[in-house]
Amino acid sequence: MWLFDVGEGTQHQILRSTIRPRKIEKIFISHLHGDHIFGLPGLLSSRSFQGGNTPLDIYGPKGIKEYVSVSLKISESRLSYKINYHELPKDTDGKIFEGKKFTVYAAPLDHRITSFGYRVVEHDHPGELMVDKLTELHIPSGPVYGKLKMGQTVTLADGRVIDGKQMIGHAQPGRIVTIIGDTRKTDNAVKLAQQADALVHESTFGKGENKLAKNYYHSTNMQAAQIAKQAGVKMLLLNHISARYTGKMAHELEKQAQTIFPNTKVVKDFDVVEIPFEKN
Amino acid sequence: MWLFDVGEGTQHQILRSTIRPRKIEKIFISHLHGDHIFGLPGLLSSRSFQGGNTPLDIYGPKGIKEYVSVSLKISESRLSYKINYHELPKDTDGKIFEGKKFTVYAAPLDHRITSFGYRVVEHDHPGELMVDKLTELHIPSGPVYGKLKMGQTVTLADGRVIDGKQMIGHAQPGRIVTIIGDTRKTDNAVKLAQQADALVHESTFGKGENKLAKNYYHSTNMQAAQIAKQAGVKMLLLNHISARYTGKMAHELEKQAQTIFPNTKVVKDFDVVEIPFEKN
Ligand SMILES: [Zn+2]
Ligand SMILES: [Zn+2]
Repeated sequence: MWLFDVGEGTQHQILRSTIRPRKIEKIFISHLHGDHIFGLPGLLSSRSFQGGNTPLDIYGPKGIKEYVSVSLKISESRLSYKINYHELPKDTDGKIFEGKKFTVYAAPLDHRITSFGYRVVEHDHPGELMVDKLTELHIPSGPVYGKLKMGQTVTLADGRVIDGKQMIGHAQPGRIVTIIGDTRKTDNAVKLAQQADALVHESTFGKGENKLAKNYYHSTNMQAAQIAKQAGVKMLLLNHISARYTGKMAHELEKQAQTIFPNTKVVKDFDVVEIPFEKN
Repeated sequence: MWLFDVGEGTQHQILRSTIRPRKIEKIFISHLHGDHIFGLPGLLSSRSFQGGNTPLDIYGPKGIKEYVSVSLKISESRLSYKINYHELPKDTDGKIFEGKKFTVYAAPLDHRITSFGYRVVEHDHPGELMVDKLTELHIPSGPVYGKLKMGQTVTLADGRVIDGKQMIGHAQPGRIVTIIGDTRKTDNAVKLAQQADALVHESTFGKGENKLAKNYYHSTNMQAAQIAKQAGVKMLLLNHISARYTGKMAHELEKQAQTIFPNTKVVKDFDVVEIPFEKN
């Protein structure tokens, strides 16, 4: 479980969800504005309080370590786990993490202060051994299955030669999710979102508010939709909606954006969005 | 408007209330545990964002200044007003503020880290000039009223001598509110709460949990009621109830405490408690 940005009250919202704080392994911070980090010390304490004892990785702009460590020091919070800080240099542009299942890329956006967008790429799932087909061919299970699964060519006891590659289904391409925090419309967002299955993009302002958006270093819903279109993503999720847009008006933002990019949704706390695998 | 302690989410709760952040003039922090301070940077930013431009005073243990200033620095929050920090030495025991309407006292409690209790004493309201009585005596209004109000003796044009002190109603004693944050049962709480109109006391634990309370440096509802009784207060308000006690169980805490101190209430967010003036 990973988090992107931790606004004030995150720990309380998490308590009201099915998420367990100790399951959170990584936290990515886009930028250091208060509404994106002021919930972090509380969340870290509550992760400890609720039995979290595995290390936690925090990624973000320079300063995040000082903020977290001073907050924990002053409040005399002794955590039951270790925090690994990864402060990203301003000009970070590329891979920042590679794990067993995912690789993460970051690049700077265009906000009043250093702000990063993140691209999370799931590794391809290798094709499955087609057991049905093997059974049909009366190939008895055993160590031979392992060899076939690795794509090797095997000679059976009865003399038949079987090419493992023929016995493996299609690889399932990994999914890509891009998260664009506070920013003006920027090319780096297009780059990070390239062919993503889902793009989460801030949409502080609405249609016709480009000037406001520029002055406040934010984006409009229409700009986010343009990014989504240019990047060829499959789905656009708008968040960070200004408090001026409530209820019906938020729905209006969604409809406006859909004129540019049809598969757009405005998302809010507790929304769960499923990202399907691509069908082969 | 003053605040005592600022837990995470305070700014959001305030938005849901009739309180205007810019009306907050003073903030008193009992101690630096996260659940008492992690809402402070967000509240300070939102006070600025919502047009607060008058200075703000923050009182609390040493460390509060570093915590607030690092949080504001890292988040690049530039406030539209000045903060005056008043870091109280560990052994503070007495007056920490005297204003036009109130005097505030602080003394250390018994928590794992330095924790202060606060006693707010409203100044006596001087007696009102009894205008009815003056009218009855046919004393014409004019500058003479001012002199009488100050208690001076005045000779009227018709030769009558009037003693101002006889024309002034009883002084109205100021009200006293004592706020006891996280602590074990301690004599300093009794001292701070002496004859208070209202005592707000933490009650993390319930009846029969003295051992837990002691181990965790907190109080039970029964201990708070004993403090209220010993100090001769008029009303006891229990807060900081453990999350284990919800709904009906919180009511149970109230009923248990009432066996020792009848005028006890459990209070929660948004509760408004009126503290009546003493009748003469
Ligand atoms: Zn921002
Ligand atoms: Zn505490």
